[in-house]
Amino acid sequence: MGQITLSQANAIIAGAFAKGAEARLNPLSVVVTDAGGHLIAFQRQDGASFGRAQIATGKAAGALAIGASSRRLGVMAEERPWFLGAFTASAPHPVIPAAGGVIVVDASGAFLGAVGVTGDTSDNDEAAALAGIAAAGLKAQG
Amino acid sequence: MGQITLSQANAIIAGAFAKGAEARLNPLSVVVTDAGGHLIAFQRQDGASFGRAQIATGKAAGALAIGASSRRLGVMAEERPWFLGAFTASAPHPVIPAAGGVIVVDASGAFLGAVGVTGDTSDNDEAAALAGIAAAGLKAQG
Amino acid sequence: MGQITLSQANAIIAGAFAKGAEARLNPLSVVVTDAGGHLIAFQRQDGASFGRAQIATGKAAGALAIGASSRRLGVMAEERPWFLGAFTASAPHPVIPAAGGVIVVDASGAFLGAVGVTGDTSDNDEAAALAGIAAAGLKAQG
Amino acid sequence: MGQITLSQANAIIAGAFAKGAEARLNPLSVVVTDAGGHLIAFQRQDGASFGRAQIATGKAAGALAIGASSRRLGVMAEERPWFLGAFTASAPHPVIPAAGGVIVVDASGAFLGAVGVTGDTSDNDEAAALAGIAAAGLKAQG
Repeated sequence: MGQITLSQANAIIAGAFAKGAEARLNPLSVVVTDAGGHLIAFQRQDGASFGRAQIATGKAAGALAIGASSRRLGVMAEERPWFLGAFTASAPHPVIPAAGGVIVVDASGAFLGAVGVTGDTSDNDEAAALAGIAAAGLKAQG
Repeated sequence: MGQITLSQANAIIAGAFAKGAEARLNPLSVVVTDAGGHLIAFQRQDGASFGRAQIATGKAAGALAIGASSRRLGVMAEERPWFLGAFTASAPHPVIPAAGGVIVVDASGAFLGAVGVTGDTSDNDEAAALAGIAAAGLKAQG
Repeated sequence: MGQITLSQANAIIAGAFAKGAEARLNPLSVVVTDAGGHLIAFQRQDGASFGRAQIATGKAAGALAIGASSRRLGVMAEERPWFLGAFTASAPHPVIPAAGGVIVVDASGAFLGAVGVTGDTSDNDEAAALAGIAAAGLKAQG
Repeated sequence: MGQITLSQANAIIAGAFAKGAEARLNPLSVVVTDAGGHLIAFQRQDGASFGRAQIATGKAAGALAIGASSRRLGVMAEERPWFLGAFTASAPHPVIPAAGGVIVVDASGAFLGAVGVTGDTSDNDEAAALAGIAAAGLKAQG
């Protein structure tokens, strides 16, 4: 297994939305990218603002570019804002340093792609991303 | 009614994919944007190459930016390539001048958003876009 | 097998350079990217001009973004220069529409990455890319 | 002697990787650029994330652009983040203000190019860069 299929991507988004409904979160936007940070699927719930595709993609693709979750990028941003700013400027995709971007791995730990969620608090966005990955029967980076 | 809902956007994508399956088209990628050219939903079928989100968005958002279908943008590109090049360079979104980007309007003709399809010939991409809009019970710009 | 290893990438570059030496080509520059168009390895032979990394990457990543060789991108550019210009402006990587960018596939035809060569005529660049892929025991897109 | 040859660049990368293996560092990515900050050679070890070419290049080219190591750029970033941000936005290459980018000089101190390493801590990245330069029989900026 080398990549996330569209069917799996849709299952991830449905799972993230189910988590949002259950936890009564704000309208969410969820992206699933391949291992190169390129979009497989995206959905923005009614009422979410228009820049959500860029934020969700920046969490997912930013995580893949550096090899860690976007939560870790957020910590790096607090510790070394200049590094984060420079990395953002150099990256081929948006980079958003806040929790909600989670890498999807195979059994060996190889990157299959990533999920990015935005719309509620970063902690809740991340919980929705993890719920979506689990709902699709896939594995998040540990 | 002022905008395409996520439910309608998903119906558009499902309708476009159904058209693709029926006509045995290559793997398609379909985007639905709001009236500002911003993503509501996107799906890339398995086997489609990674640049498809940009191409689909460029058809849909390019159409909205100029107020005509991306087929019309293609005609403009043939007639006045310098204009198209300058417009592309100035636009806030990608602009792809080839059939497959269709504006969705309400009963009064006001723009609700747009659909962009890529993956097969431009003519077939446009047919899938129109089929998706019809399947969702919406109306394409005449 | 889901991606090209660094060892394979170095073998591809060595094979392309061997072809260049055998055919007495101009100094070559060769890039190998992963399936997302991101660099695994690059080498520029002495005497080659400084913009070669961008050209080689544009052949390889451009091919992957559209799903066909950069030779095919060159044909598209002749037939529809406005489409190529617009695609270039929208793509997340450089796009160079000239032969020399070849997609590497696995046994099922899935994309593993791509090779981009620049420095001699486009035909010779492509021959070197194909020689490199063969030397590494890998398979070029048919 | 006015520039780093490809043979020397490959020796630098091999030396940096040898240091990484000896010190059991994370997978490294190493770039060697000419005096203009343009790529001569790059290699990304298996397991490194996809954004590493930009980070390594940003350390090497950023160092050359300002005339000091990327460690010094990191200090500048702490002292005057606004200056670093503005410099980053204006530079023709990425600029990454963290140790690991080291300028290579000739006997007179003239710049021959630079090495950029990323993958482990910044201090370890810099140690690998210095090891690579020494392994190739070249001299780092004092």
